[in-house]
Amino acid sequence: MSRIVDLSTPIADHFRWPVERSLRGDFEQGDVFQVTRLGWSVHGFTHMDSPRHMVPGGPTTSDIPLETTVGEAAVLDFTDIAPETALDGAALAARARHLRPGDIALFKTAWGARRSIDTPEFWTEAPYVTRDGAEWLRDRKPRAVGFDFPQDYPIRLLLKGEVRPIEEQVTHDVLLRNGVVLIEYLVNTRELDRERVWFCCLPLKIEDSDGAPVRAIAMLDA
Amino acid sequence: MSRIVDLSTPIADHFRWPVERSLRGDFEQGDVFQVTRLGWSVHGFTHMDSPRHMVPGGPTTSDIPLETTVGEAAVLDFTDIAPETALDGAALAARARHLRPGDIALFKTAWGARRSIDTPEFWTEAPYVTRDGAEWLRDRKPRAVGFDFPQDYPIRLLLKGEVRPIEEQVTHDVLLRNGVVLIEYLVNTRELDRERVWFCCLPLKIEDSDGAPVRAIAMLDA
Repeated sequence: MSRIVDLSTPIADHFRWPVERSLRGDFEQGDVFQVTRLGWSVHGFTHMDSPRHMVPGGPTTSDIPLETTVGEAAVLDFTDIAPETALDGAALAARARHLRPGDIALFKTAWGARRSIDTPEFWTEAPYVTRDGAEWLRDRKPRAVGFDFPQDYPIRLLLKGEVRPIEEQVTHDVLLRNGVVLIEYLVNTRELDRERVWFCCLPLKIEDSDGAPVRAIAMLDA
Repeated sequence: MSRIVDLSTPIADHFRWPVERSLRGDFEQGDVFQVTRLGWSVHGFTHMDSPRHMVPGGPTTSDIPLETTVGEAAVLDFTDIAPETALDGAALAARARHLRPGDIALFKTAWGARRSIDTPEFWTEAPYVTRDGAEWLRDRKPRAVGFDFPQDYPIRLLLKGEVRPIEEQVTHDVLLRNGVVLIEYLVNTRELDRERVWFCCLPLKIEDSDGAPVRAIAMLDA
């Protein structure tokens, strides 16, 4: 038997990601059915990016087969790092020896257990991947990479309204631009207690999009 | 190796389910990232219902573990039925002998291949489940039931603005009210070419809701 580990953040109004939520059907108004309506950005909460997110005319969610984000994943354990650690090629080489070509790579920093995703410090004090680290990953040819922390240094600057050039968003520039799908804001990675897991990240079927909300789980064999 | 069969409808503006879609980040406006925003009812397209959809104060999506909609499923083949067929207990007994207690039951009418979901006829000419059929299913104790057609007769009347009492929405009244999760508007079921499949229906993590959009797949072993 397998155990399901839920790796997804709840979709609820957040200081970085406003969610509009209302009732279109409401028992108190005499309706037979309660019907909730939601509106939000597909880049809030646990989600996947397609290259179109940063490449004008680039591939969209319609170009990403489900197989890209479903299957064997290597768990890269960085739970012992300090805040604001720069994850470079050497750091990755030391922790990702078990990463195989074609794998899904999953970062396990468990950062969300140290700084709440509901606070600015989740961003401002986060570890991040360097260009050299992103290149190390790209050269191992993963088909997708999942992160449980805001993985590009400039993401924290968005909290001050500062948008840095795309070249500085290094995982986007090095991985996503080259077709490696990014899965962002995974949570609960501390429960991934082994080097390899079966990962299942299913995006909503939103066509021709720069990204899509997902529900992501891992299955752990007993 | 397993093959993934996608059982989900695209989320795009539809005559019954309006979708608001806009760009919050737009290359043409000089933005570094393209960012799509979407808003729609959680009961449009492929989705799951929690009992709260019809029971004031009833269990919500937060009360439904992921295990409810992930696992072994029995495929109930009704691809040969005529339009407007009433699926009663006798019809189910003849086709669902392989349904085991605790299974997920998946209706395979392939109705979407006969009437497009983009036309009113998908609803007005659809087969439907009778109260007796819903009771037959309930008594077999499935943990969830997936449908690829509008399974309650009165759903078609909503196109004329006619809302019938909840008692006439028989799968809701007999199954959902008793905690059997409903998965609605599955598509592509014709590809389920065997009696049992591994089904994986992952709802977005929307808490305390009457329902949630899902991505639903089946895995077929080669």
